[in-house]
Amino acid sequence: MFNYQIIIEYDGTNFVGWQKQKNGYSVQQTIEKTFSKILKEKTKLYGSGRTDSGVHAANQSATFNLKNKIKNKFLFLNSVNFFLRKQNISVLRIHKKNIEFHARFSAKKRVYKYIIINRIAPLSLKFNRAWHVKSNLNLMLIKKAANLLVGKKDFSVFRASSCGAKSPIKTLDEVKVVKSNEEIIIKFKSKSFLQQQVRSMVGCLKYVGEKKWSLKKFKKIIKSKKRNNCAPPAPAHGLYLSKVYY
Amino acid sequence: MFNYQIIIEYDGTNFVGWQKQKNGYSVQQTIEKTFSKILKEKTKLYGSGRTDSGVHAANQSATFNLKNKIKNKFLFLNSVNFFLRKQNISVLRIHKKNIEFHARFSAKKRVYKYIIINRIAPLSLKFNRAWHVKSNLNLMLIKKAANLLVGKKDFSVFRASSCGAKSPIKTLDEVKVVKSNEEIIIKFKSKSFLQQQVRSMVGCLKYVGEKKWSLKKFKKIIKSKKRNNCAPPAPAHGLYLSKVYY
Repeated sequence: MFNYQIIIEYDGTNFVGWQKQKNGYSVQQTIEKTFSKILKEKTKLYGSGRTDSGVHAANQSATFNLKNKIKNKFLFLNSVNFFLRKQNISVLRIHKKNIEFHARFSAKKRVYKYIIINRIAPLSLKFNRAWHVKSNLNLMLIKKAANLLVGKKDFSVFRASSCGAKSPIKTLDEVKVVKSNEEIIIKFKSKSFLQQQVRSMVGCLKYVGEKKWSLKKFKKIIKSKKRNNCAPPAPAHGLYLSKVYY
Repeated sequence: MFNYQIIIEYDGTNFVGWQKQKNGYSVQQTIEKTFSKILKEKTKLYGSGRTDSGVHAANQSATFNLKNKIKNKFLFLNSVNFFLRKQNISVLRIHKKNIEFHARFSAKKRVYKYIIINRIAPLSLKFNRAWHVKSNLNLMLIKKAANLLVGKKDFSVFRASSCGAKSPIKTLDEVKVVKSNEEIIIKFKSKSFLQQQVRSMVGCLKYVGEKKWSLKKFKKIIKSKKRNNCAPPAPAHGLYLSKVYY
């Protein structure tokens, strides 16, 4: 048995998400089909984590097992990308790994990036690639609120009701907020995230940036541990799975 | 008579370019139609410069004259952007200007940005937004070659045969080359550019980066002033009109 890791970029716009679903095409399924066809061996992919419908990935990571070794990795990637070229999926790299290595369970850190474009006019160049927020956002308040999220705590407020994680307690290692002209980029680093955690946090940060919530109120809401106190989650199309560290 | 300036963002993918053409829709024409409809007055737009088919703009600038004053600029932009929302054109801002101000003739500097993604795998997230170059590019050589382009000189090599400018002599004020992971961004600043000048220069910089041409050869080619010595121009979809200074 051989074990391989691939690094994948995709535009999530036209997919139901990473994970197989009944209502449309998933990224996982599209890659599995292509691999099975090329390798003439049924291939099952394990992603580092699911991404929701519309969420993008710059460096998703996935592993799969094979009975037969891939003889030429370069040619393999070439044919994979040829078949995937109209699907907005690119397989960037492939690595042979020891058999214990698993895209999901071996992951040490995950980084997600969220892009907001803060302006009145609608988006053309970043359409479906960023969240268009018209109301004026206060960067300093967003930065202060973001700092309140860092550390080990109960993230129940930011957890989708359908989340299957055993515990709502996670450690958020880092949140970085950077602004360049009208673009605000927020990066989150953690071992793992709850379902919709990033989008829920960004939705709340927007409320603070709009001064709908004071920092004091935001602190209270985090402590409440009640999902129904959460602001509407930010839309999927502004979110990118940036990197997975092992 | 009233004179207005607008700042425009567009995704050039589906347009024949800025300027009206017989073979498809232009950005200029699409905006003129929308303005004429909303303002109930035939509107003629003057852009700071033409962009070719497929070229994008982050901040194109254009002026137009009106018999009637625009009473509410905010409402005007709102309805303009409502009509343009499916065309991938966004009008970002509008300013009332004195009657002498002209988007093209009053321009002091223009900045173009060119994006290369240098990697083997095809593009998904930046598809139609950057030039995909597979061959390994040497950044240091590109930077050195870019410096050779700066200053007042005869840019005949980089000038499309259809270019209508009186003289091939231009002053290139600045070229900046920045790399971040697999992305190379090259910014060019000049009072004005010849037709296809930026794309032609980028095509040649790629040849130097690939070591197809030495720096010595590139110097000779610039001095030759012969268009047929130019490398194939870089594709339109990596080019952005970034900013126009007045």
